[in-house]
Amino acid sequence: MKQTAPLFDRVALIGIGLIGSSLARAIAKHGLAGHIFISTRSADTLATAQALNLGDCYTQDPAKAVQDADLVVVCTPMGAYEAVAKAMASALKPGAIVSDVGSVKASAIKDILPHLPSGVHLVPGHPIAGTEHSGPKAGYADLFPGHWCILTPPPKTNAEAVDKVRTLWQMCGANVEIMTPNHHDRVLAITSHLPHLIAYTIVDTAAQLEDDTQNEVIKFSAAGFRDFTRIAASDPVMWRDVFLSNKSAVLDILGRFRDDLDRMTNAIEQGDGDLLEDAFTRTRAIRRGIIDLKQHIPDVKPD
Amino acid sequence: MKQTAPLFDRVALIGIGLIGSSLARAIAKHGLAGHIFISTRSADTLATAQALNLGDCYTQDPAKAVQDADLVVVCTPMGAYEAVAKAMASALKPGAIVSDVGSVKASAIKDILPHLPSGVHLVPGHPIAGTEHSGPKAGYADLFPGHWCILTPPPKTNAEAVDKVRTLWQMCGANVEIMTPNHHDRVLAITSHLPHLIAYTIVDTAAQLEDDTQNEVIKFSAAGFRDFTRIAASDPVMWRDVFLSNKSAVLDILGRFRDDLDRMTNAIEQGDGDLLEDAFTRTRAIRRGIIDLKQHIPDVKPD
Repeated sequence: MKQTAPLFDRVALIGIGLIGSSLARAIAKHGLAGHIFISTRSADTLATAQALNLGDCYTQDPAKAVQDADLVVVCTPMGAYEAVAKAMASALKPGAIVSDVGSVKASAIKDILPHLPSGVHLVPGHPIAGTEHSGPKAGYADLFPGHWCILTPPPKTNAEAVDKVRTLWQMCGANVEIMTPNHHDRVLAITSHLPHLIAYTIVDTAAQLEDDTQNEVIKFSAAGFRDFTRIAASDPVMWRDVFLSNKSAVLDILGRFRDDLDRMTNAIEQGDGDLLEDAFTRTRAIRRGIIDLKQHIPDVKPD
Repeated sequence: MKQTAPLFDRVALIGIGLIGSSLARAIAKHGLAGHIFISTRSADTLATAQALNLGDCYTQDPAKAVQDADLVVVCTPMGAYEAVAKAMASALKPGAIVSDVGSVKASAIKDILPHLPSGVHLVPGHPIAGTEHSGPKAGYADLFPGHWCILTPPPKTNAEAVDKVRTLWQMCGANVEIMTPNHHDRVLAITSHLPHLIAYTIVDTAAQLEDDTQNEVIKFSAAGFRDFTRIAASDPVMWRDVFLSNKSAVLDILGRFRDDLDRMTNAIEQGDGDLLEDAFTRTRAIRRGIIDLKQHIPDVKPD
C-alpha cells in the first residue's frame, strides 16, 4: 500500500546485506521514506547496491549517510556496531531515531548508546527473518510479512520514536513485540543461537570425515542431516558476532543442552530404552504447540 | 504403471505403521503383488489398516500372514524383530524372501537371520523416507519416489532374491543402492541418527524450561528452533530402537560431535572469533555439495 506522506523523510541504512537490502526494498515498495541513503564499508557491496537501485544516494562514509536522516538503521554485523556508532554520532541530527537489526540486543545497546548525542533516540530492533543467503542480492521486499520483529527500547525511550519504528516494521508486514533486551537475548539463545551453533557443529563434524564417507553423507543427507545444513549455511561473520555478543546466555543454554546430551548418551550406553522413549515422547508436545500457534511452515514433502 | 503379471504373488507385511502402510499403498498402486497379507500385534492398528483397505487379509499372527508368502517385509520397530522372526520362521515357505525396512542393518541381520530356515533368502532394506507422523493413516503411496532405498544383503545371498527386492523398490519409485550392513550403519549414524538425537535433545532442553519461557520458545521458534522440532516429532519407539540397535556407530560419531562442540564452546568462552568464523565458513561447502547433488528440497519461504 503506497502512502501519500511517507513515514520518514530521510532514512539511512548502514550496511546493505540480506536484511538491510530487504528493508530498503520493503521501504521503497510501501513508500515509507522520501529518500533512502545507503552506506557500507565495502566499495564492491556499495556498487552492487547501487546497481540494484536500492536507494537514492550511496556513500562509504556513514557520517555522510546519516546527515539529516530522520531514521538510521544499522544493518552491519554486530562486530562493527561500535565503530559505526562512533563514526556517525557527531553527524546525527537532534531528534533522529537510531535503530538496528542485530540478533543480540543488550550488546547492541552497550555498543551504540554511549556514543549517541543527547536528543537522539535509540530503538533497537530484531526482525526474526532471514535466509541462508547473504549480501544485497539475496534480499527481497517480502522477507518480513508473517515474521516477528522484536523492539527492545531502553527505559524512558521517547514513546513517539518507538511508535514510529513499530509502524515501520508493521508497514513492512512484520508483527511487532516489545521486550527488554536481556529477556530477548535469553529467548533467542534457545530459539535461534543454540540451534545455529548445534547445526554448525554437526555439519562441521561431517566436514571432517574422510572424503568417501563425506560424499555419502551428502548423498544420503535427506535422512535428517540436510535440515541442519541449511541452517549451517548462514552468514559466518554475522553468526560469529552473535555468539561473541550473547556469550553468557548462549553458554548458559549450551550448558543445559550438554547436560541433556550427557543423559541421552548415558542412556544409549546403558541400553536404557525407557529414558529415551520418555524424552522422545516429551518433545512431540513442543512440536504440537508450534503447529497450534501456526508458527510452522506447511510441511514440504517430507524426507 | 500397472503390470499385467505382478512381481510377487503374495506379499506379507508385518507391521503397518508409516512405512508399512506406505509400502502397502505403493504395492497396490503399482500392481506389484497378487495379494497383500497384513499382520500387526495391536488389534486397534490392524482394524485401522483394514478400514483403510490396505490389504486383502488381516491377522495378528505373523505366522499366518507369512504362510505361502513369496515376500515378507518386516515393518515393525526394530525392538520387535527377533520376536517376529521367531514367530514366523517355521511358517515360511522354501524360497521365500524376507526383507525389512529398519534404520539399522547389522542388528537387523543379527536379530532375523539366525531364525530363518535354510532356503529362505534375507534381503534387508532401508528406505530413507519418512515423515514425523506415524501409524497406518500417516502413510501414502508416493512416499518413496526421489528417495534412496539401501539394501544390505549378507554375503552369498541369492542374487535373484536381491534383484526382486531391488525391482520392488524401483517400481515404488526409490533409487536403490547396495552396501554392507556395517557401512550403512556408519553412514546413517552421521546423516540420520546423530541429527535425530541432537534434535530430540535440544527440543527436550527447551521442554524443561520454565513455562513462560517455553511459550516464547514456541512463539519465536521460526528463528531456527522450529526446524529441529519437526525432526524431534518422529516416532519415539522407532527411534528408541534405532539408538539401541546402532549403539557403537552412534556413540562413535557422538564422541566426535561432542569434541567439536567443546571446541566451539571454548571459542565462545575465549572470544575466539577466528575459530568460529572458520568453522562456519567450512560448513557452507557441505550445503553447496547437497545443492549440487540436488539432495535438497527447493527452499520453502525462509524464516
